Amino acid sequence: MGAGNVGFHLGIKLHEMGVEVLEVFSRTKVKAKNLAIKIDAKPRSKLKKITTKADLYIIAVKDDAIASVVQKLAKTAIKNKLVVHTSGGTNTAMMGEWLTNFGSFYPLQTFSISKQPNWETIPICVDANTKKSRKTLLKLAKKITTKVYEINDEQRAILHIAAVFVNNFSNHLFHIGATICEKENLDFEILKPLIQETVDKLKSGNPNEMQTGPALRKDQKTITTHLNYLEKYNKIKKLRILFCVSCVK
Amino acid sequence: MGAGNVGFHLGIKLHEMGVEVLEVFSRTKVKAKNLAIKIDAKPRSKLKKITTKADLYIIAVKDDAIASVVQKLAKTAIKNKLVVHTSGGTNTAMMGEWLTNFGSFYPLQTFSISKQPNWETIPICVDANTKKSRKTLLKLAKKITTKVYEINDEQRAILHIAAVFVNNFSNHLFHIGATICEKENLDFEILKPLIQETVDKLKSGNPNEMQTGPALRKDQKTITTHLNYLEKYNKIKKLRILFCVSCVK
Repeated sequence: MGAGNVGFHLGIKLHEMGVEVLEVFSRTKVKAKNLAIKIDAKPRSKLKKITTKADLYIIAVKDDAIASVVQKLAKTAIKNKLVVHTSGGTNTAMMGEWLTNFGSFYPLQTFSISKQPNWETIPICVDANTKKSRKTLLKLAKKITTKVYEINDEQRAILHIAAVFVNNFSNHLFHIGATICEKENLDFEILKPLIQETVDKLKSGNPNEMQTGPALRKDQKTITTHLNYLEKYNKIKKLRILFCVSCVK
Repeated sequence: MGAGNVGFHLGIKLHEMGVEVLEVFSRTKVKAKNLAIKIDAKPRSKLKKITTKADLYIIAVKDDAIASVVQKLAKTAIKNKLVVHTSGGTNTAMMGEWLTNFGSFYPLQTFSISKQPNWETIPICVDANTKKSRKTLLKLAKKITTKVYEINDEQRAILHIAAVFVNNFSNHLFHIGATICEKENLDFEILKPLIQETVDKLKSGNPNEMQTGPALRKDQKTITTHLNYLEKYNKIKKLRILFCVSCVK
């Protein structure tokens, strides 16, 4: 259920592995169809019409919609089937109010429809309310990747917060960098080796040891020059000041 | 002059290329010595004692100290030699007040003493006040890397701001991610494939197109859960809220 970034790539991967994906659900008909056709599944756009015959139900809709999907499934025979969600930011405990077998199957990665994921390198975090379900999910996860972790609700929530910092927020910084270059007719390509190195350095040590730059060196003159420039971009400036303080400390 | 991260690695590279590095200056005697011994140069810890016989003087001290180094050099015969700095955040125009030949030789990369840089992939941004000096610097840069750019003061300043966003600030986010994991006894290694993918995605599209996560999806419940968690880390929370607003917009 769900044909967004995660649902799309997970659906394709399961199909490629030889798992029989019976149906693809998406409220957006065309999205259900687009994925279903790729993986020999039936498209569904109404939850009450989905099959009750599957062994596993994977909910990959946006976080805020998970509870409502669970409640709808619980009105059918699916109530007693194994149902998991793929969300880092949602606990599984709440699923217990409606279902008897439930858990999470969280691939800790950022997915975009247009980019093929390399599943072997992707950590999958698994949890379930029974030993049997956990075993089923671990077995499936291990066919997808070597990086399988048993992660409970609390741990997953924390991993997800950390993931937002290292991924979504960093990507937003890359976006700011690209925007600055674009506004000034400079090629963002010039910055890409620097971005790659920032990440490569994590192999040599922890990020705290690897920090460099004007804030760390306390190059006050340079920091002032930067802040003056950023006056032009007021929204960015607010961000900058907080970061600076935080870096220096 | 300067045996910090940039001076250290640039000194070694020049020596490896067969450039005769006559002297290494650092106010910290032991730093000058440590580098000098590696590259067959003489260590110097007093500026007024450095040779006047070199063809090129490279200033790789912290930004705030550049002007004072330039002024001291200008009191000797070095006044008419080619002097460059390696700083992204400092203009060259101010060097003209004291010197006749000056410019910049800015390797746009993050350097740490402990990590060997891959010079072939590093963009070097070159500028000088005369055609002849520019030619000399371009020739030298092209021996180090294929990525050589002529970048004037204004462009370099802007590249440097963008570089701080994509490198120093991202690295700070990685540090926050690592800190959250550490506080909760989770292995930061689990997040590294995600970090790598965040960067790999830049090859497929611009960062704006590649954004994912709860802020983009407007998963308000998840955002609230995260903010509640971050109450524990007040300093981080301030950062988070600003980012959130900025991502959603």
